[in-house]
Amino acid sequence: MTGELSSEAAKRGRPRSDDVERAILTAASELLMEKGLDAMTIEEVAARAGVGKASIYRRWSTKGGLALDAFLVDYLTLQPVVDTGDLEEDLREGLTHWATAVVDTAIGRALVGIIAEAQNDEVLAHEWIDRVLAPARERYRVMVDRAIERGEIPSGSDVDVIMDLLYGAAYHRLLQGHLQIDPKFVAQVAHLVAQGAKSGSTNSTA
Amino acid sequence: MTGELSSEAAKRGRPRSDDVERAILTAASELLMEKGLDAMTIEEVAARAGVGKASIYRRWSTKGGLALDAFLVDYLTLQPVVDTGDLEEDLREGLTHWATAVVDTAIGRALVGIIAEAQNDEVLAHEWIDRVLAPARERYRVMVDRAIERGEIPSGSDVDVIMDLLYGAAYHRLLQGHLQIDPKFVAQVAHLVAQGAKSGSTNSTA
Repeated sequence: MTGELSSEAAKRGRPRSDDVERAILTAASELLMEKGLDAMTIEEVAARAGVGKASIYRRWSTKGGLALDAFLVDYLTLQPVVDTGDLEEDLREGLTHWATAVVDTAIGRALVGIIAEAQNDEVLAHEWIDRVLAPARERYRVMVDRAIERGEIPSGSDVDVIMDLLYGAAYHRLLQGHLQIDPKFVAQVAHLVAQGAKSGSTNSTA
Repeated sequence: MTGELSSEAAKRGRPRSDDVERAILTAASELLMEKGLDAMTIEEVAARAGVGKASIYRRWSTKGGLALDAFLVDYLTLQPVVDTGDLEEDLREGLTHWATAVVDTAIGRALVGIIAEAQNDEVLAHEWIDRVLAPARERYRVMVDRAIERGEIPSGSDVDVIMDLLYGAAYHRLLQGHLQIDPKFVAQVAHLVAQGAKSGSTNSTA
Protein backbone atom coordinates (compact mmCIF):
# COMPACT_ATOMS: atom_id res chain seq x y z
CA MET A 1 0.00 0.00 0.00
CA THR A 2 2.94 2.35 0.63
CA GLY A 3 3.41 5.01 -1.99
CA GLU A 4 -0.07 4.65 -3.42
CA LEU A 5 -1.11 8.18 -2.61
CA SER A 6 0.53 11.41 -3.52
CA SER A 7 1.66 13.31 -0.47
CA GLU A 8 -0.71 16.12 -1.48
CA ALA A 9 -3.74 13.89 -1.32
CA ALA A 10 -2.60 12.56 2.03
CA LYS A 11 -2.20 16.11 3.33
CA ARG A 12 -5.73 16.98 2.27
CA GLY A 13 -6.81 14.16 4.54
CA ARG A 14 -9.12 12.40 2.08
CA PRO A 15 -9.96 8.76 2.76
CA ARG A 16 -7.02 6.88 1.36
CA SER A 17 -9.05 4.13 -0.33
CA ASP A 18 -11.36 6.54 -2.14
CA ASP A 19 -8.43 8.42 -3.58
CA VAL A 20 -6.81 5.23 -4.78
CA GLU A 21 -10.02 4.04 -6.37
CA ARG A 22 -10.55 7.38 -8.10
CA ALA A 23 -6.98 7.41 -9.40
CA ILE A 24 -7.38 3.89 -10.78
CA LEU A 25 -10.69 4.71 -12.47
CA THR A 26 -9.30 7.90 -13.99
CA ALA A 27 -6.23 6.11 -15.33
CA ALA A 28 -8.35 3.25 -16.69
CA SER A 29 -10.72 5.68 -18.38
CA GLU A 30 -7.87 7.57 -20.03
CA LEU A 31 -6.22 4.40 -21.29
CA LEU A 32 -9.52 2.96 -22.51
CA MET A 33 -10.11 6.06 -24.62
CA GLU A 34 -6.52 6.28 -25.83
CA LYS A 35 -5.98 2.64 -26.81
CA GLY A 36 -9.20 0.71 -26.50
CA LEU A 37 -10.06 -2.18 -24.22
CA ASP A 38 -8.05 -4.81 -26.05
CA ALA A 39 -4.76 -2.88 -25.96
CA MET A 40 -4.91 -1.46 -22.44
CA THR A 41 -3.24 -3.43 -19.64
CA ILE A 42 -3.55 -3.53 -15.86
CA GLU A 43 0.19 -2.74 -15.70
CA GLU A 44 -0.34 0.54 -17.54
CA VAL A 45 -3.35 1.46 -15.42
CA ALA A 46 -1.30 0.82 -12.26
CA ALA A 47 1.64 2.88 -13.55
CA ARG A 48 -0.53 5.82 -14.59
CA ALA A 49 -2.53 5.76 -11.35
CA GLY A 50 0.66 5.54 -9.29
CA VAL A 51 -0.50 2.41 -7.47
CA GLY A 52 0.60 -1.20 -7.32
CA LYS A 53 -1.13 -3.87 -9.43
CA ALA A 54 -2.29 -5.53 -6.21
CA SER A 55 -4.30 -2.42 -5.36
CA ILE A 56 -6.19 -2.88 -8.61
CA TYR A 57 -6.71 -6.62 -8.27
CA ARG A 58 -8.02 -6.17 -4.74
CA ARG A 59 -10.85 -4.10 -6.24
CA TRP A 60 -11.36 -5.59 -9.72
CA SER A 61 -10.87 -9.22 -10.70
CA THR A 62 -10.82 -8.55 -14.46
CA LYS A 63 -9.55 -5.84 -16.79
CA GLY A 64 -12.96 -5.73 -18.45
CA GLY A 65 -14.72 -5.07 -15.15
CA LEU A 66 -12.36 -2.21 -14.33
CA ALA A 67 -12.67 -0.71 -17.82
CA LEU A 68 -16.48 -0.86 -17.68
CA ASP A 69 -16.63 0.76 -14.24
CA ALA A 70 -14.30 3.50 -15.48
CA PHE A 71 -16.42 3.92 -18.60
CA LEU A 72 -19.66 4.14 -16.61
CA VAL A 73 -18.43 7.06 -14.50
CA ASP A 74 -17.77 9.20 -17.60
CA TYR A 75 -20.82 7.91 -19.47
CA LEU A 76 -23.34 8.73 -16.75
CA THR A 77 -21.73 12.04 -15.84
CA LEU A 78 -22.55 13.17 -19.39
CA GLN A 79 -26.16 11.99 -19.13
CA PRO A 80 -27.88 13.74 -16.21
CA VAL A 81 -31.45 12.77 -15.38
CA VAL A 82 -33.89 14.98 -17.29
CA ASP A 83 -37.29 16.11 -16.05
CA THR A 84 -39.17 18.60 -18.24
CA GLY A 85 -42.64 17.40 -17.24
CA ASP A 86 -43.38 16.10 -20.76
CA LEU A 87 -42.50 12.65 -22.15
CA GLU A 88 -41.53 13.73 -25.67
CA GLU A 89 -39.38 16.57 -24.35
CA ASP A 90 -37.75 14.27 -21.81
CA LEU A 91 -36.97 11.67 -24.49
CA ARG A 92 -35.59 14.33 -26.81
CA GLU A 93 -33.41 15.81 -24.09
CA GLY A 94 -32.29 12.42 -22.79
CA LEU A 95 -31.34 11.21 -26.25
CA THR A 96 -29.61 14.53 -26.95
CA HIS A 97 -27.40 13.96 -23.89
CA TRP A 98 -26.57 10.48 -25.16
CA ALA A 99 -25.78 11.73 -28.66
CA THR A 100 -23.62 14.56 -27.34
CA ALA A 101 -21.71 12.06 -25.22
CA VAL A 102 -21.02 9.47 -27.92
CA VAL A 103 -21.22 10.90 -31.45
CA ASP A 104 -17.69 11.61 -32.73
CA THR A 105 -16.17 11.51 -29.25
CA ALA A 106 -13.50 9.43 -27.54
CA ILE A 107 -16.12 7.99 -25.20
CA GLY A 108 -18.25 7.02 -28.20
CA ARG A 109 -15.31 5.20 -29.79
CA ALA A 110 -14.71 3.39 -26.48
CA LEU A 111 -18.42 2.48 -26.33
CA VAL A 112 -18.42 1.05 -29.84
CA GLY A 113 -15.15 -0.81 -29.19
CA ILE A 114 -16.48 -2.44 -26.03
CA ILE A 115 -19.71 -3.53 -27.75
CA ALA A 116 -17.69 -4.98 -30.64
CA GLU A 117 -15.45 -6.93 -28.27
CA ALA A 118 -18.41 -8.15 -26.24
CA GLN A 119 -19.69 -9.98 -29.33
CA ASN A 120 -16.76 -12.40 -29.02
CA ASP A 121 -16.35 -12.43 -25.25
CA GLU A 122 -19.18 -13.85 -23.17
CA VAL A 123 -17.75 -12.71 -19.83
CA LEU A 124 -17.39 -9.15 -21.09
CA ALA A 125 -20.92 -9.29 -22.54
CA HIS A 126 -22.35 -10.18 -19.13
CA GLU A 127 -20.22 -7.56 -17.38
CA TRP A 128 -21.39 -4.99 -19.94
CA ILE A 129 -25.04 -5.67 -19.10
CA ASP A 130 -24.46 -5.69 -15.33
CA ARG A 131 -22.03 -2.79 -15.01
CA VAL A 132 -23.11 -0.36 -17.76
CA LEU A 133 -26.37 -1.16 -19.49
CA ALA A 134 -28.38 -1.87 -16.33
CA PRO A 135 -27.33 1.28 -14.41
CA ALA A 136 -27.77 3.43 -17.55
CA ARG A 137 -31.27 2.00 -18.00
CA GLU A 138 -32.12 2.75 -14.38
CA ARG A 139 -31.39 6.37 -15.17
CA TYR A 140 -33.23 6.42 -18.50
CA ARG A 141 -36.36 4.64 -17.31
CA VAL A 142 -37.19 7.44 -14.88
CA MET A 143 -38.37 9.48 -17.90
CA VAL A 144 -40.94 6.80 -18.74
CA ASP A 145 -41.86 5.99 -15.14
CA ARG A 146 -42.73 9.66 -14.61
CA ALA A 147 -44.88 9.71 -17.76
CA ILE A 148 -46.79 6.72 -16.35
CA GLU A 149 -47.20 8.49 -12.99
CA ARG A 150 -48.50 11.61 -14.75
CA GLY A 151 -51.00 9.46 -16.67
CA GLU A 152 -49.41 10.56 -19.94
CA ILE A 153 -49.00 6.94 -21.09
CA PRO A 154 -50.84 3.77 -20.00
CA SER A 155 -49.90 2.22 -16.67
CA GLY A 156 -49.24 -1.14 -18.36
CA SER A 157 -46.56 0.31 -20.67
CA ASP A 158 -43.48 -1.85 -21.14
CA VAL A 159 -40.68 0.52 -20.18
CA ASP A 160 -37.97 -1.75 -21.60
CA VAL A 161 -39.54 -1.81 -25.05
CA ILE A 162 -39.85 1.99 -25.03
CA MET A 163 -36.17 2.28 -24.05
CA ASP A 164 -35.16 -0.20 -26.76
CA LEU A 165 -36.96 1.88 -29.39
CA LEU A 166 -35.45 5.19 -28.28
CA TYR A 167 -31.85 4.11 -27.72
CA GLY A 168 -31.99 1.21 -30.19
CA ALA A 169 -32.72 3.53 -33.12
CA ALA A 170 -29.76 5.70 -32.11
CA TYR A 171 -27.37 2.79 -31.48
CA HIS A 172 -28.41 1.44 -34.87
CA ARG A 173 -27.06 4.55 -36.61
CA LEU A 174 -24.00 4.65 -34.32
CA LEU A 175 -23.01 1.04 -35.05
CA GLN A 176 -24.10 0.69 -38.67
CA GLY A 177 -23.09 4.18 -39.74
CA HIS A 178 -25.65 4.44 -42.54
CA LEU A 179 -27.10 7.82 -41.48
CA GLN A 180 -26.29 10.74 -39.22
CA ILE A 181 -27.36 11.13 -35.61
CA ASP A 182 -28.31 14.81 -35.74
CA PRO A 183 -30.80 16.96 -33.79
CA LYS A 184 -33.51 16.35 -36.40
CA PHE A 185 -33.14 12.57 -36.06
CA VAL A 186 -33.18 12.82 -32.26
CA ALA A 187 -36.35 14.94 -32.38
CA GLN A 188 -38.06 12.57 -34.83
CA VAL A 189 -37.25 9.51 -32.74
CA ALA A 190 -38.44 11.18 -29.53
CA HIS A 191 -41.65 12.26 -31.27
CA LEU A 192 -42.47 8.85 -32.73
CA VAL A 193 -41.63 6.94 -29.55
CA ALA A 194 -43.66 9.32 -27.36
CA GLN A 195 -46.63 9.16 -29.76
CA GLY A 196 -46.40 5.38 -29.95
CA ALA A 197 -46.20 5.08 -26.18
CA LYS A 198 -49.23 7.31 -25.74
CA SER A 199 -51.33 5.37 -28.23
CA GLY A 200 -51.91 2.28 -26.17
CA SER A 201 -50.49 -0.41 -23.95
CA THR A 202 -47.19 -1.86 -25.10
CA ASN A 203 -48.26 -5.07 -23.41
CA SER A 204 -50.48 -5.76 -26.40
CA THR A 205 -49.55 -9.02 -28.06
CA ALA A 206 -51.24 -7.79 -31.23
CA MET B 1 -10.41 -21.73 -65.93
CA THR B 2 -10.11 -25.47 -66.58
CA GLY B 3 -11.68 -27.65 -63.94
CA GLU B 4 -13.83 -24.90 -62.50
CA LEU B 5 -17.10 -26.61 -63.24
CA SER B 6 -18.21 -30.05 -62.33
CA SER B 7 -18.87 -32.16 -65.40
CA GLU B 8 -22.49 -32.48 -64.25
CA ALA B 9 -23.05 -28.75 -64.28
CA ALA B 10 -21.42 -28.59 -67.70
CA LYS B 11 -23.75 -31.34 -68.95
CA ARG B 12 -26.80 -29.46 -67.71
CA GLY B 13 -25.67 -26.68 -69.98
CA ARG B 14 -25.96 -23.83 -67.50
CA PRO B 15 -24.00 -20.67 -68.19
CA ARG B 16 -20.54 -21.43 -66.96
CA SER B 17 -19.97 -18.08 -65.24
CA ASP B 18 -23.21 -18.20 -63.25
CA ASP B 19 -22.37 -21.66 -61.95
CA VAL B 20 -18.92 -20.53 -60.88
CA GLU B 21 -20.30 -17.48 -59.15
CA ARG B 22 -22.92 -19.53 -57.34
CA ALA B 23 -20.33 -22.08 -56.22
CA ILE B 24 -18.09 -19.31 -54.88
CA LEU B 25 -20.95 -17.62 -53.01
CA THR B 26 -22.11 -20.91 -51.51
CA ALA B 27 -18.61 -21.80 -50.35
CA ALA B 28 -18.05 -18.31 -48.94
CA SER B 29 -21.36 -18.43 -47.09
CA GLU B 30 -20.56 -21.81 -45.56
CA LEU B 31 -17.11 -20.71 -44.44
CA LEU B 32 -18.41 -17.41 -43.08
CA MET B 33 -20.89 -19.26 -40.90
CA GLU B 34 -18.42 -21.95 -39.86
CA LYS B 35 -15.45 -19.75 -38.97
CA GLY B 36 -16.43 -16.11 -39.14
CA LEU B 37 -15.12 -13.40 -41.45
CA ASP B 38 -11.76 -12.95 -39.76
CA ALA B 39 -10.77 -16.62 -39.98
CA MET B 40 -12.03 -17.46 -43.46
CA THR B 41 -9.59 -17.15 -46.38
CA ILE B 42 -9.93 -16.78 -50.14
CA GLU B 43 -7.83 -19.97 -50.47
CA GLU B 44 -10.42 -21.98 -48.55
CA VAL B 45 -13.30 -20.50 -50.51
CA ALA B 46 -11.53 -21.40 -53.76
CA ALA B 47 -10.82 -24.95 -52.60
CA ARG B 48 -14.36 -25.56 -51.42
CA ALA B 49 -15.91 -24.05 -54.53
CA GLY B 50 -13.57 -26.06 -56.74
CA VAL B 51 -12.31 -22.97 -58.55
CA GLY B 52 -8.99 -21.17 -58.83
CA LYS B 53 -8.27 -18.11 -56.69
CA ALA B 54 -8.09 -16.02 -59.86
CA SER B 55 -11.74 -16.82 -60.57
CA ILE B 56 -12.62 -15.25 -57.24
CA TYR B 57 -10.40 -12.20 -57.61
CA ARG B 58 -11.84 -11.53 -61.07
CA ARG B 59 -15.22 -11.06 -59.39
CA TRP B 60 -14.38 -9.72 -55.93
CA SER B 61 -11.45 -7.50 -55.04
CA THR B 62 -11.70 -8.09 -51.27
CA LYS B 63 -12.56 -10.97 -48.96
CA GLY B 64 -15.00 -8.69 -47.13
CA GLY B 65 -16.87 -7.87 -50.32
CA LEU B 66 -17.22 -11.56 -51.20
CA ALA B 67 -18.32 -12.48 -47.67
CA LEU B 68 -20.94 -9.72 -47.62
CA ASP B 69 -22.35 -10.69 -51.02
CA ALA B 70 -22.55 -14.30 -49.86
CA PHE B 71 -24.19 -13.21 -46.62
CA LEU B 72 -26.76 -11.07 -48.44
CA VAL B 73 -28.03 -13.97 -50.54
CA ASP B 74 -28.89 -16.02 -47.44
CA TYR B 75 -30.09 -13.03 -45.45
CA LEU B 76 -32.60 -11.80 -48.01
CA THR B 77 -33.81 -15.28 -48.94
CA LEU B 78 -34.99 -15.59 -45.33
CA GLN B 79 -36.76 -12.22 -45.44
CA PRO B 80 -39.35 -12.21 -48.22
CA VAL B 81 -41.28 -9.00 -48.89
CA VAL B 82 -44.46 -8.92 -46.81
CA ASP B 83 -47.75 -7.35 -47.85
CA THR B 84 -50.71 -7.86 -45.53
CA GLY B 85 -52.40 -4.56 -46.38
CA ASP B 86 -51.85 -3.19 -42.85
CA LEU B 87 -48.76 -1.36 -41.57
CA GLU B 88 -48.64 -2.87 -38.09
CA GLU B 89 -49.15 -6.36 -39.45
CA ASP B 90 -46.50 -5.82 -42.12
CA LEU B 91 -44.00 -4.54 -39.54
CA ARG B 92 -44.76 -7.47 -37.24
CA GLU B 93 -44.36 -9.99 -40.04
CA GLY B 94 -41.27 -8.31 -41.46
CA LEU B 95 -39.56 -8.19 -38.07
CA THR B 96 -40.60 -11.78 -37.40
CA HIS B 97 -38.78 -12.85 -40.58
CA TRP B 98 -35.70 -10.96 -39.42
CA ALA B 99 -35.83 -12.49 -35.93
CA THR B 100 -36.33 -16.00 -37.31
CA ALA B 101 -33.32 -15.49 -39.58
CA VAL B 102 -30.89 -14.17 -36.96
CA VAL B 103 -31.85 -15.12 -33.39
CA ASP B 104 -29.77 -18.12 -32.28
CA THR B 105 -28.77 -19.02 -35.84
CA ALA B 106 -25.50 -19.37 -37.72
CA ILE B 107 -26.49 -16.46 -39.95
CA GLY B 108 -27.18 -14.35 -36.87
CA ARG B 109 -23.74 -15.12 -35.47
CA ALA B 110 -22.21 -14.18 -38.82
CA LEU B 111 -24.23 -10.94 -38.81
CA VAL B 112 -23.06 -9.98 -35.34
CA GLY B 113 -19.46 -10.92 -36.18
CA ILE B 114 -19.44 -8.75 -39.30
CA ILE B 115 -20.90 -5.77 -37.45
CA ALA B 116 -18.31 -6.19 -34.69
CA GLU B 117 -15.45 -6.31 -37.21
CA ALA B 118 -16.82 -3.34 -39.12
CA GLN B 119 -16.30 -1.19 -36.01
CA ASN B 120 -12.53 -1.50 -36.51
CA ASP B 121 -12.42 -1.68 -40.31
CA GLU B 122 -13.55 1.34 -42.26
CA VAL B 123 -13.49 -0.40 -45.65
CA LEU B 124 -15.66 -3.22 -44.33
CA ALA B 125 -18.00 -0.69 -42.70
CA HIS B 126 -18.58 1.01 -46.07
CA GLU B 127 -18.97 -2.31 -47.86
CA TRP B 128 -21.48 -3.39 -45.20
CA ILE B 129 -23.65 -0.34 -45.88
CA ASP B 130 -23.42 -0.66 -49.68
CA ARG B 131 -23.71 -4.41 -50.05
CA VAL B 132 -26.03 -5.46 -47.21
CA LEU B 133 -27.72 -2.66 -45.32
CA ALA B 134 -28.83 -0.68 -48.39
CA PRO B 135 -30.37 -3.62 -50.30
CA ALA B 136 -32.02 -4.93 -47.11
CA ARG B 137 -33.51 -1.48 -46.50
CA GLU B 138 -34.83 -1.35 -50.06
CA ARG B 139 -36.79 -4.47 -49.22
CA TYR B 140 -37.96 -3.29 -45.80
CA ARG B 141 -39.02 0.19 -46.88
CA VAL B 142 -41.70 -1.19 -49.20
CA MET B 143 -43.79 -1.88 -46.08
CA VAL B 144 -43.72 1.81 -45.18
CA ASP B 145 -44.01 3.11 -48.75
CA ARG B 146 -47.23 1.10 -49.17
CA ALA B 147 -48.63 2.50 -45.90
CA ILE B 148 -47.99 6.00 -47.27
CA GLU B 149 -49.68 5.07 -50.57
CA ARG B 150 -52.69 3.72 -48.67
CA GLY B 151 -52.87 6.96 -46.70
CA GLU B 152 -52.35 5.00 -43.48
CA ILE B 153 -49.49 7.28 -42.43
CA PRO B 154 -48.65 10.87 -43.50
CA SER B 155 -47.06 11.39 -46.90
CA GLY B 156 -44.17 13.30 -45.32
CA SER B 157 -43.14 10.36 -43.12
CA ASP B 158 -39.40 9.74 -42.84
CA VAL B 159 -39.10 6.11 -43.89
CA ASP B 160 -35.51 5.82 -42.65
CA VAL B 161 -36.42 6.87 -39.13
CA ILE B 162 -39.28 4.38 -39.05
CA MET B 163 -36.91 1.61 -40.23
CA ASP B 164 -34.33 2.64 -37.61
CA LEU B 165 -36.93 2.36 -34.86
CA LEU B 166 -38.20 -1.04 -35.97
CA TYR B 167 -34.92 -2.76 -36.73
CA GLY B 168 -32.87 -0.65 -34.32
CA ALA B 169 -34.86 -1.87 -31.31
CA ALA B 170 -34.31 -5.46 -32.42
CA TYR B 171 -30.61 -5.03 -33.23
CA HIS B 172 -30.24 -3.40 -29.81
CA ARG B 173 -31.35 -6.61 -28.08
CA LEU B 174 -29.35 -8.76 -30.51
CA LEU B 175 -26.09 -6.88 -29.92
CA GLN B 176 -26.45 -5.94 -26.25
CA GLY B 177 -28.09 -9.18 -25.16
CA HIS B 178 -29.97 -7.64 -22.23
CA LEU B 179 -33.40 -9.02 -23.14
CA GLN B 180 -34.99 -11.64 -25.38
CA ILE B 181 -36.20 -11.09 -28.92
CA ASP B 182 -39.43 -13.09 -28.68
CA PRO B 183 -42.81 -12.84 -30.46
CA LYS B 184 -44.18 -10.57 -27.73
CA PHE B 185 -41.32 -8.11 -28.17
CA VAL B 186 -41.71 -8.18 -31.95
CA ALA B 187 -45.45 -7.49 -31.64
CA GLN B 188 -44.90 -4.65 -29.15
CA VAL B 189 -42.28 -2.97 -31.33
CA ALA B 190 -44.46 -3.28 -34.45
CA HIS B 191 -47.42 -1.86 -32.54
CA LEU B 192 -45.56 1.13 -31.11
CA VAL B 193 -43.79 1.98 -34.36
CA ALA B 194 -47.00 1.75 -36.38
CA GLN B 195 -48.88 3.88 -33.85
CA GLY B 196 -46.09 6.42 -33.75
CA ALA B 197 -45.92 6.57 -37.54
CA LYS B 198 -49.67 7.09 -37.78
CA SER B 199 -49.69 9.88 -35.21
CA GLY B 200 -48.05 12.56 -37.31
CA SER B 201 -45.30 13.53 -39.65
CA THR B 202 -41.87 12.25 -38.69
CA ASN B 203 -40.50 15.34 -40.37
CA SER B 204 -41.40 17.32 -37.28
CA THR B 205 -38.39 19.00 -35.79
CA ALA B 206 -40.23 19.29 -32.45
